[in-house]
Amino acid sequence: MISPDKINYYFGNNLRKFREAKGCSQEEFAEICKISRAYYGRIERGEHSITIEKCALIAQALGIHISVLFTDLPD
Amino acid sequence: MISPDKINYYFGNNLRKFREAKGCSQEEFAEICKISRAYYGRIERGEHSITIEKCALIAQALGIHISVLFTDLPD
Repeated sequence: MISPDKINYYFGNNLRKFREAKGCSQEEFAEICKISRAYYGRIERGEHSITIEKCALIAQALGIHISVLFTDLPD
Repeated sequence: MISPDKINYYFGNNLRKFREAKGCSQEEFAEICKISRAYYGRIERGEHSITIEKCALIAQALGIHISVLFTDLPD
């Protein structure tokens, strides 16, 4: 299981892959999610631990089930 | 996709199933997770939106991959 102190880093990296696969810049994707670009950048860099509410918002914006945001994270 | 305003409720309900399957009281499980019983109770009742760091802590305590905390949540 991923330790709590590494999850933000892995989650942010994984999120970047989803965003890039969607062909969005950070700015465009932050706008879709209705969060600030600066805040979104911190999430991708693993500098912030987001809530499951923000995860649901991001999953909605990507059109995926919330669990898929975590599926590829290391064990 | 689950809307952000419903995720805390569904997550809390799902977490209660995992805890009960482990045969722990809220008090015992909160102690394993090193969080207060009151705070843990709010999470299960859906009154609080926890961070992915706390999700990693809970997944570790349950011995499951973090994505499994979300797998059974409604689409």
